[in-house]
Amino acid sequence: MADEGMWQPHQLPSIAKQLTKAGLKLNPNDLTDLTGFPMGAIVSLGGCTASFVSDKGLVASNHHCVYGSIQYNSTEENNLLENGFLAKTFDQELPATPGSRIYVTEEINEVTKLITAGVSDNMAGQERYNTIDKNSKALVAECETNKDYRCSVVNFHGGLEYYLFKQLMIRDVRLVHAPANSIGKYGGDIDNWMWPRHTGDYGFYRAYVGKDGKPADYSKDNVPYEPKHHLKVNKSSVDDGDYIMVLGYPGRTNRYRTAFEVENQFTWVYPHSKAYREELIDLIHNASAPGSDARIKYESTLAGLANYAKNYGSMIKSYNKGTTLERKQKLEQDLTAWINADAKRKAKYGDALSGLNKLIAQDNSTQARDMILGYMGYNKMIGTAYRLHRLAIEKQKPNVERERGYQERDMARFEQGLKAFDRRFDADIDREILFAMLKHYAKLPKAERIAAIDEFFNIGKTLDEKRLQKQLAKMYKSSKIADEKSRLAWLEKDVNAFEKSSDPFIKLAVDTFDVRQKMEKQSKELYGNIQAYRPKYMEALIAYFNAKKLPVYADANSTLRITYGNVKGYSPQDGLVATPFTTLEGIVAKDTGVEPFNAPKKQLSLIEKKQYGEYVKSDLNSVPVNYLGTLDITGGNSGSPTLNDKAEFVGLVFDGVYESVIGDWDYDPKLNRSIHVDVKYMLWVMEHIDGATNLIEEMDIVE
Amino acid sequence: MADEGMWQPHQLPSIAKQLTKAGLKLNPNDLTDLTGFPMGAIVSLGGCTASFVSDKGLVASNHHCVYGSIQYNSTEENNLLENGFLAKTFDQELPATPGSRIYVTEEINEVTKLITAGVSDNMAGQERYNTIDKNSKALVAECETNKDYRCSVVNFHGGLEYYLFKQLMIRDVRLVHAPANSIGKYGGDIDNWMWPRHTGDYGFYRAYVGKDGKPADYSKDNVPYEPKHHLKVNKSSVDDGDYIMVLGYPGRTNRYRTAFEVENQFTWVYPHSKAYREELIDLIHNASAPGSDARIKYESTLAGLANYAKNYGSMIKSYNKGTTLERKQKLEQDLTAWINADAKRKAKYGDALSGLNKLIAQDNSTQARDMILGYMGYNKMIGTAYRLHRLAIEKQKPNVERERGYQERDMARFEQGLKAFDRRFDADIDREILFAMLKHYAKLPKAERIAAIDEFFNIGKTLDEKRLQKQLAKMYKSSKIADEKSRLAWLEKDVNAFEKSSDPFIKLAVDTFDVRQKMEKQSKELYGNIQAYRPKYMEALIAYFNAKKLPVYADANSTLRITYGNVKGYSPQDGLVATPFTTLEGIVAKDTGVEPFNAPKKQLSLIEKKQYGEYVKSDLNSVPVNYLGTLDITGGNSGSPTLNDKAEFVGLVFDGVYESVIGDWDYDPKLNRSIHVDVKYMLWVMEHIDGATNLIEEMDIVE
Repeated sequence: MADEGMWQPHQLPSIAKQLTKAGLKLNPNDLTDLTGFPMGAIVSLGGCTASFVSDKGLVASNHHCVYGSIQYNSTEENNLLENGFLAKTFDQELPATPGSRIYVTEEINEVTKLITAGVSDNMAGQERYNTIDKNSKALVAECETNKDYRCSVVNFHGGLEYYLFKQLMIRDVRLVHAPANSIGKYGGDIDNWMWPRHTGDYGFYRAYVGKDGKPADYSKDNVPYEPKHHLKVNKSSVDDGDYIMVLGYPGRTNRYRTAFEVENQFTWVYPHSKAYREELIDLIHNASAPGSDARIKYESTLAGLANYAKNYGSMIKSYNKGTTLERKQKLEQDLTAWINADAKRKAKYGDALSGLNKLIAQDNSTQARDMILGYMGYNKMIGTAYRLHRLAIEKQKPNVERERGYQERDMARFEQGLKAFDRRFDADIDREILFAMLKHYAKLPKAERIAAIDEFFNIGKTLDEKRLQKQLAKMYKSSKIADEKSRLAWLEKDVNAFEKSSDPFIKLAVDTFDVRQKMEKQSKELYGNIQAYRPKYMEALIAYFNAKKLPVYADANSTLRITYGNVKGYSPQDGLVATPFTTLEGIVAKDTGVEPFNAPKKQLSLIEKKQYGEYVKSDLNSVPVNYLGTLDITGGNSGSPTLNDKAEFVGLVFDGVYESVIGDWDYDPKLNRSIHVDVKYMLWVMEHIDGATNLIEEMDIVE
Repeated sequence: MADEGMWQPHQLPSIAKQLTKAGLKLNPNDLTDLTGFPMGAIVSLGGCTASFVSDKGLVASNHHCVYGSIQYNSTEENNLLENGFLAKTFDQELPATPGSRIYVTEEINEVTKLITAGVSDNMAGQERYNTIDKNSKALVAECETNKDYRCSVVNFHGGLEYYLFKQLMIRDVRLVHAPANSIGKYGGDIDNWMWPRHTGDYGFYRAYVGKDGKPADYSKDNVPYEPKHHLKVNKSSVDDGDYIMVLGYPGRTNRYRTAFEVENQFTWVYPHSKAYREELIDLIHNASAPGSDARIKYESTLAGLANYAKNYGSMIKSYNKGTTLERKQKLEQDLTAWINADAKRKAKYGDALSGLNKLIAQDNSTQARDMILGYMGYNKMIGTAYRLHRLAIEKQKPNVERERGYQERDMARFEQGLKAFDRRFDADIDREILFAMLKHYAKLPKAERIAAIDEFFNIGKTLDEKRLQKQLAKMYKSSKIADEKSRLAWLEKDVNAFEKSSDPFIKLAVDTFDVRQKMEKQSKELYGNIQAYRPKYMEALIAYFNAKKLPVYADANSTLRITYGNVKGYSPQDGLVATPFTTLEGIVAKDTGVEPFNAPKKQLSLIEKKQYGEYVKSDLNSVPVNYLGTLDITGGNSGSPTLNDKAEFVGLVFDGVYESVIGDWDYDPKLNRSIHVDVKYMLWVMEHIDGATNLIEEMDIVE
């Protein structure tokens, strides 16, 4: 198992020996205290992790985690993406992109019994879904005593356990500093998931609160938040072999999926998904010139599309070369043998795997259509119309009964989403995305298609593409959804108003609502049924692992986890070794002057002159840029501070190497490597390139 | 200087200390004896190196050096390239491609005084050229006492020194064994010049002679040649850091070119040449389906085109990233300062560099046209017609006055070339190559074009491409040159017959002969003039190096050299280290089942089962496939045996890494690495895959 494992804080005492043996100098039990040091300094940005690095609420995260806010504040005239940004004083700090939040986890409680109250083995799927949903919503409502807190119930081991998370939610977030893209995104999509790496993937936010110290909406009068704990920054960084750990919010792993799920994922889902992503990337590239307003609006979308197209490509490659499926099948054989070896176990778990796989097969039967509809979601007009209409429907219900995302607690974010629409929208690109996905949709067998959509777009045995193009052009011309005022006005309108509307996208939403509702119900029924099998399967699996004295950690689910390991290189290929550190000289060697290998001239010149300052690492005779670790991370860990054996900040984790992307499904200690920005590089750039000395002074720098 | 240097055998006593210090266990002086051990075992194939590895004339070289002979014996029905070839008995051995020779260097004598007799400082270029040429031809004629020997005068240091080489020429060469392409060419063009590498680049010839032991034309009655010396094969191979050396015939390096030459080469010649090569590759690919007869005929041409397109690409890249030009300019400044510091030196060498550069500028003025005409040489019809016509012209002169290549000594090879025409000719491809290059030619300014060619092809201000295509189609239809009988018939015809011929290609040869003669004369005049300056420049440079106590070796010129160094990895990129060995497991990891990564199933299965046999290298726990060395090699070294400290065979050098391709101009000890097939891999494949146990038994295997 080696360095595999994303451990929940409460599990740490059970692996205390291993932690200490690996080199941790703190008492492992201290890591379980969410409001103590160091856990109290770790925060979530929702999708990314971050950490407090000063007593004035300064927050360090990845450049790619604050990217949306840099983009939000960029214009063609003042392109902060290109130039970078530094607030030399607090009043120069810029509002982060609307809806930005900083979440501080304050409480985690197991609530399995409360959530599964009323659930029985033989209830229908929809009923099971609703019971769990209702219990969950009630717990959340009870927990969210005021709007300063956000609570959530999260399932672990596929529903075997549930935990309630209570997070302080800071809603005035400001952009403090980010290097230029040519540092923060150096290497771009080409180097993404790759080693050797030379990316300065860091940026800084600041948390603001009202004068009373409590979360508040943005106001000039707000003051920097003073966290109880913040991390010290150790400018000595780390050496090869040193203990490191990452505290953060890893998003999703699938280490306990069945062989049947694994095979479908790697032979159907990833290959198709990759193809759709590549198609959309090409489409956006063709429809927008580099540097144009349209392109700037879609940079973030493009980055996301490309990121996962490459991610899926790596996984497919690793899967085809590796033995993931064979090992999974072997595990299932062994598990089944173990279950069948005992009558009691057989009675309890005997049908878990087969029952689960049967339901998964049911889910897979509509995956071709579901994936097309999913990628159609990159079209903003339809998505916005659907959501606005759904809001009017949900508003007819009491708040607590409404669907997630449509409750009162969601309204501020909902509105901010509508306001941010323009920043990532170009009508031509939006229309072309819809056209492209409708063409795929039209190729589906009739039985898989949706009558209301077919009717709306006149899709029959064949598709008249010219006609469809005309229809879409007309829709975009007559719809008012792209107009902010009209769009926001829908927030207050009732269902009747939607039904009477002649706006073509609203009409599409209304026309297809019933069938989408039906699909949603079917999906809940299926999910509810799976809830009867997945926990049972996981219980069997955990019992099996426990019998073999193997530690078990839950799949990542965007909740706080700890992973620990060492700074360490690896062999990506027979005949090659990746050394654990890259250096400044590697930037010069990679540089072509052309994006994404266009380091600032000033940087190249400083490197040429070997102006390493105090950040030189003597055994490298240079400043280290990035380093490799054995940590078990995934998306969501982005922005997590990398901590040394005393829980001091020594960098930021921001990526994994190409060979480790399949780690979300299958961790390989030989190939799984995390990539970190070295704190020395951050400080060197901040001091020598960007002059961010105000921030260096603000942080507690130790050595 | 480190491991830089391609030393002439007679220089070895002067570096004896270094050789012994590096680890050589033989007496360095022994290496100077051409007919002793080990030099007597080293032979040239003309373009490649090889070595005797048994007392029955078994010759080991690279797969890519015997490739032409495998191709020559391949048909669509029995594709030896695909299947590999093994003669289990002597009588199963196949004739090598016509014209194949094995050259055994028996004597090397300095002849500078004889060659430069009659040369004076102020003679015209053409006269100087002719004087040297005449002296050289006379020496060669005197040396070639019978047709068993081939002699050549080769200039060193750009004409500062001349040596006469006398080589025994074995002309019955047979193919004994070669692995399948999927081993011998594993990785193909993709892996060419790359590390990590997993290529089994070896093959075996055998030298045959008449019953009297003397060279003889092919005959069934010939017997295997019994060399005085052959190499022992050490199956223990080598370890990281071990002393290794390569004895061979490196083709051409340009380490002493002027800055002006270097800049033109890297900013004009290589970029243009690379583009023409890539165009021809595309053209041949488009015109022939993989596996078709046409494609098989052009595989060798394609390999050559691709090999150097990639080679030039690497050099351009290294040049642009590196400081080759700056260092060259610095050297010239230092040299000039050193010359000017002494009145005598100034008088002797003061105009050497400027005079040389002026002549080079003159040469460069027609390089655009000359390069197009050069690549037009890939058209076989024109080349053949030109050569046949030239032969008729030359035959009017006494033998010794004829141009090189048209003398009696050249006739056998000339005829074999004409006979082999079909094996590498497809009329459609040949015509398209001509069409493509004529289109480039037509874009040249009129002053650079050649009136006779313009007239023949109707090239004016613009080119009527359709008309030209029709003309070419007609030419190919009416010409008889592609017909072997007609082609060979021209060998005996006189000039008059050519002038009367209506064969369009013969007509083209006749029509353009005068202007080509004029160009050739101009070129000789220029070369003669350069001969007045280059030796002087080299003399100055050598004097300067001697004054700085730096050893000087001559640029490679296809003559016998020794380079020594160690088995050693390198860092191709910041954050990556190339380890010195690759292993069998790397083949499995690279394998896709698709050419060029389509290892034989039997091989993959043996590796899976870890059937390493006696060839396992314990520290790798596998069989080593290829290894890296610091040796200073270049094209022509291909096929050279890699020798250990006792001059035992431990592999074959077959390539250099990508970063070292620029080594032909600029050796960098950090990046220059030679790539070798490990003898353990050769023996493992021979024993376990190909069953070539007869050869293993024939060789003297030691450990």
